[in-house]
Amino acid sequence: MIERINRGRVQASGVLLGPGDDAALVAAPDGRFVVTTDMLVQDRHFRLDWSSPEDIGRKAIAQNAADVVAMGAWPSAFVVALGCPADTALEFVDGLSDGMWAEAARAGASIAGGDLVRSRELVISVTAFGDLRGGAAITRAGARVGDTVAVAGRLGWSAAGLAILTAGSRPDDVAEALAAHRVPQPPYAAVLDTVTTGVTALTDVSDGLLADLGHIAESSGVAIDLDSAALRDPALERLAARMDADAAQWILTGGEDHAFAGTWSPETDLPAGWTPIGRVCAGHGVTVDGATRPGDAGWESFGGVDSAVPGRSR
Amino acid sequence: MIERINRGRVQASGVLLGPGDDAALVAAPDGRFVVTTDMLVQDRHFRLDWSSPEDIGRKAIAQNAADVVAMGAWPSAFVVALGCPADTALEFVDGLSDGMWAEAARAGASIAGGDLVRSRELVISVTAFGDLRGGAAITRAGARVGDTVAVAGRLGWSAAGLAILTAGSRPDDVAEALAAHRVPQPPYAAVLDTVTTGVTALTDVSDGLLADLGHIAESSGVAIDLDSAALRDPALERLAARMDADAAQWILTGGEDHAFAGTWSPETDLPAGWTPIGRVCAGHGVTVDGATRPGDAGWESFGGVDSAVPGRSR
Repeated sequence: MIERINRGRVQASGVLLGPGDDAALVAAPDGRFVVTTDMLVQDRHFRLDWSSPEDIGRKAIAQNAADVVAMGAWPSAFVVALGCPADTALEFVDGLSDGMWAEAARAGASIAGGDLVRSRELVISVTAFGDLRGGAAITRAGARVGDTVAVAGRLGWSAAGLAILTAGSRPDDVAEALAAHRVPQPPYAAVLDTVTTGVTALTDVSDGLLADLGHIAESSGVAIDLDSAALRDPALERLAARMDADAAQWILTGGEDHAFAGTWSPETDLPAGWTPIGRVCAGHGVTVDGATRPGDAGWESFGGVDSAVPGRSR
Repeated sequence: MIERINRGRVQASGVLLGPGDDAALVAAPDGRFVVTTDMLVQDRHFRLDWSSPEDIGRKAIAQNAADVVAMGAWPSAFVVALGCPADTALEFVDGLSDGMWAEAARAGASIAGGDLVRSRELVISVTAFGDLRGGAAITRAGARVGDTVAVAGRLGWSAAGLAILTAGSRPDDVAEALAAHRVPQPPYAAVLDTVTTGVTALTDVSDGLLADLGHIAESSGVAIDLDSAALRDPALERLAARMDADAAQWILTGGEDHAFAGTWSPETDLPAGWTPIGRVCAGHGVTVDGATRPGDAGWESFGGVDSAVPGRSR
């Protein structure tokens, strides 16, 4: 099976030694490497009746790659441990692996190794690596009062797709939302091409915009106020109206789009791909138009029911 | 929970940024890093009635650290993704984490980050990193005809412990075997202090000596013949006799002691801690006293029954 998964794959140039020995060997030209790990569990982080194996593979890699990029690092490699029941179809593993390799390539990297074990439910554990190319790691702790808050990538569309799948009944014209839920498209390159100057704090949006900006606010010892008008998305509002849903709620609390949120020095002209959505202020917490939104908690790992629900980054 | 796990922990010097951001940052002074990942599943790779949480944590780290050392690299950091049922006791996670930190420290490293999710069965996914300190990676492919085959560390004791636990009835004086099964003690330092000269191929023994030497033989395009007399262990034979078991079988096919097996240039005096057990020859396959032992397969990931059985390295 491991041979089958790796057959014909071409490793990225940074993978100096791929699968087949006790360990792999990956280049770290910067002399440091960024590392993050996420575990996805069947029927909790993904559902086989909602997503194809390729979709699941792409998403598993994308959410880890987004965490690497959120540090300002270029993805270099991934390793994947997969637990699956003994009766898992070969085609499922093939599809999962194809999706992983496709998304790893989109992120500029490849899959350097892994493990394959038997388990009762499907469990996918991805670890991702990145290289800072001599730059400083961009943490959540650098936001300063007066900075502009901006996002790159889409917000709320994955939450809309999840709402559609959960409701079961499908209004027309929802393909975009379903695709957003099944295969997030984090704008890796747009972020990495622009974070070299002026960005003071950076994160990916995986727990929901309010929750993830809350992490920046807490780590940086500041408050953040968002401008609701800047967050509006007419296409998402039209979709929400057809579902009697609240587009703002999707935008503010939906994770899994793996957009990026950052704070920028006010002297910096926001680069292409970034949309200003608010301001860093003195204080603590995150507000919208100056007011808190009670009950807008982000994703909680151990809350909720045992159905597929948005993933989280750490 | 994540805060609780990390409270009071002191990171190794190579961990430049630990838990709390989108990703961790680890030093790679060599400009490359070794990486390996292993997934452990409850009732397949460990059993809660056989091992304490601390034991399980130590073993999970040890088997990954052994893979790093088997490349000739010094462990630098680990990341851990943990899936556990919602009713998992806090004390279990505390114990698991304590065991992991203790073994990571014994390997000279620390736990730089992780993920914590809900799952139906306990799943532990460890990824380990190491630094080659400017040396070449020691693969399985370098064995040459005429090399000496040698081992560092104990063989068969973990298999003996597993046999005792499986049998249920416990003869006297089995504490050593039970401890060997519960907490392997790979001789990291002894290996890393000695592999600088003369070693041509190296692996850790996780699938069983015959299987792992088989990997070296296949990768190197050579045969290996072992000397049964050199492998004898009188204490293990006494234990085996009391259980009507075969010590040689434990030694040749038991994994999980995470001893190390290497091939050494015949010009090299074997360093302290290494015991010669055989010779590299022309041909293919692994023999004992010139004969094959039919049926001595190593651990197979998807074979066997769903009870705790020896782990494997990749």
